[in-house]
Amino acid sequence: MSGILYGVGIGPGDPDLITLKALKLLQSVPVIAYPAPAVGNSLARQIAAPHIPEGRREIIIRISMAPKDANDRSAYDRAAVEIGAVLRDGQDVAVICEGDPFFYGSFMYLFNRLSGEFEVQVIPGVSSLTACSGATLMPLASHTEVLCVLPAPLPEDELRARLAQTDAAAIIKLGHHANKICTILKDMDLLAGAKYVAHATMPNQTVGNLADIDPADVPYFSMILVRKNEVTG
Amino acid sequence: MSGILYGVGIGPGDPDLITLKALKLLQSVPVIAYPAPAVGNSLARQIAAPHIPEGRREIIIRISMAPKDANDRSAYDRAAVEIGAVLRDGQDVAVICEGDPFFYGSFMYLFNRLSGEFEVQVIPGVSSLTACSGATLMPLASHTEVLCVLPAPLPEDELRARLAQTDAAAIIKLGHHANKICTILKDMDLLAGAKYVAHATMPNQTVGNLADIDPADVPYFSMILVRKNEVTG
Repeated sequence: MSGILYGVGIGPGDPDLITLKALKLLQSVPVIAYPAPAVGNSLARQIAAPHIPEGRREIIIRISMAPKDANDRSAYDRAAVEIGAVLRDGQDVAVICEGDPFFYGSFMYLFNRLSGEFEVQVIPGVSSLTACSGATLMPLASHTEVLCVLPAPLPEDELRARLAQTDAAAIIKLGHHANKICTILKDMDLLAGAKYVAHATMPNQTVGNLADIDPADVPYFSMILVRKNEVTG
Repeated sequence: MSGILYGVGIGPGDPDLITLKALKLLQSVPVIAYPAPAVGNSLARQIAAPHIPEGRREIIIRISMAPKDANDRSAYDRAAVEIGAVLRDGQDVAVICEGDPFFYGSFMYLFNRLSGEFEVQVIPGVSSLTACSGATLMPLASHTEVLCVLPAPLPEDELRARLAQTDAAAIIKLGHHANKICTILKDMDLLAGAKYVAHATMPNQTVGNLADIDPADVPYFSMILVRKNEVTG
């Protein structure tokens, strides 16, 4: 019998935003795996640290963040081989994932490589979407409102068209695209009401009105929330 | 000193999908409140039941589900008065919410009525969005894909236009709109790949390909997930 591959959402950053289900799994599974930069600590490992018992086998998936390697998936090829061998040996593996495994998460690369041969289970987590909404006290959507998640790297024309059509939006993957987004929102008269969150639920969380933020200081792990109307009722 | 109003996401249904943070709060807060139908049990109370200590004061917000009362918010007016009195008396109140308080949740009605006078904190929860994605093993979105949350009661023309423009969609609030949605997805050649989940993570969870589901059997607490492309990489 092969082991089961678990994609485990550990939440947005506050270690207490892990679910009981994820916690119980981390306490019982023999092998955990997680992404990490080429050099330095894994954010996922750091978030889950209080919940990982000593003596677990840990598989570290080192990912180059250099722009030239943006489309290089060879680290996932190698990780899939290593994890596959453990699963074939009958041991379960928990891949810990910031937020939720299937909400813009890199777990998908392992899922694509391993789900053909092995049973996969996903334990959903608190995503950055609900974490940022809670941190700003700005509701995401209600009633028949449409909510769009818009990655900031999209072309400016496309972002404008999509923002024109939605009731509410969460703009993700900001980083050096923040200036472009602020310009678009200002042109569309959406800047004044927009909220900004960086490092949601972490000790270095920043929350505020987007209009007060310097776009040059916006990290990748940040989000802008936009609503066209107050929530009524 | 007034008490704090907490909006507490308790997750999509499996009691183990509550976060440690919500769990700790429920164990310490003196008063909890939750919505319930006019007659019968509260789903939120049922989900959180294993985590609520004995002897808590409980405020039940009875909501009529009759179509004629769809826009009647008087129950929230009354609940805000009752909860406001407790807060003014210096006691904290935790409103427990299925999924996440700010993702299409009725907590917004209490937030609107009470946040002017009282401190409010929101504890984000695992939403139905990530729960359904995990249950179907269909990733929500990756890279620069756009993800739209579309309430099924929207007009058919609008749903078609929005589905035409998005990379991925989660269609919520299905119930008796399921037939309309299936027709739209079939016309757009999106039916075959669409996934369906009802009562995600609960004992009566149903998961499957939408093409195999009888639209007449679709409850309100269900979701359809649509993707236009495979997740690559």
